[in-house]
Amino acid sequence: MTTLSPNPDRNAMALALAAAAAGADAGETPVGAVVVRAGRVISVAHNLVEATPDATAHAEILAIRAAARRLGAARLPECTLFVTLEPCAMCAGAIEHARLKRVVFGAYDPKGGGVQHGARVFERLTCRHRPEVVGGVGEAQSAAMLRAFFQTLR
Amino acid sequence: MTTLSPNPDRNAMALALAAAAAGADAGETPVGAVVVRAGRVISVAHNLVEATPDATAHAEILAIRAAARRLGAARLPECTLFVTLEPCAMCAGAIEHARLKRVVFGAYDPKGGGVQHGARVFERLTCRHRPEVVGGVGEAQSAAMLRAFFQTLR
Repeated sequence: MTTLSPNPDRNAMALALAAAAAGADAGETPVGAVVVRAGRVISVAHNLVEATPDATAHAEILAIRAAARRLGAARLPECTLFVTLEPCAMCAGAIEHARLKRVVFGAYDPKGGGVQHGARVFERLTCRHRPEVVGGVGEAQSAAMLRAFFQTLR
Repeated sequence: MTTLSPNPDRNAMALALAAAAAGADAGETPVGAVVVRAGRVISVAHNLVEATPDATAHAEILAIRAAARRLGAARLPECTLFVTLEPCAMCAGAIEHARLKRVVFGAYDPKGGGVQHGARVFERLTCRHRPEVVGGVGEAQSAAMLRAFFQTLR
């Protein structure tokens, strides 16, 4: 009998995707984020730009703030951020400031991304902290959710 | 008799500098920010990274969030942000998302800035909103305050 080895990245991303779906139900751009430390979920968030209203209320910012509050520290060097969409420049900057160890994202974002596109924040010589970055985990699900959301807006 | 013409940029920056000084007294990196609309101060903030603790609690983010709350809108297209230090990539991204009309900053920041240095967020082809940017207003005072603060840390 073969047992598939568990994939913690996939599990955490599934949670981020579920948060994104909850965001879509609430009328927010469906992006979800999860902060994990040593296999434990520290915080979960989805975009809240419309509800708050607050242009900075991206899922990543909210998850980072919640994790900092929970852990009592501005820096989160033992934590991984899972997010369903490539972070924008603002969120990449927040990841740099919070010293997150890893970032795992879902869909690539050629128009709004700031990691592998646009400002490419972690590639700048002045960048003070470069997390390990993995893209494309849960990409298809995340992209489908975003596509469906933007189609209903038209 | 000669009356000096009032300089609203200088006045708003003086308020941002006063906020920065209050931040330094509280043990925070001395950066202050003010959001102004039609000559009226909408919000004032200084860095709160240490006190909260929250790596995203830069003066600009807090001032933008407070202005959005006060005006009931995520986008602030009629507002000017005054900040004593060149915004970092995170804060430049927040300014882009909030659609601020103008940004007036004090000291240039070759190491941490993301407007005229580093990620140069507003210069990217994918940038969705480019505010009018003025640098160097109140530069000497801001730089002196930052220098004094970092000297006491050594």
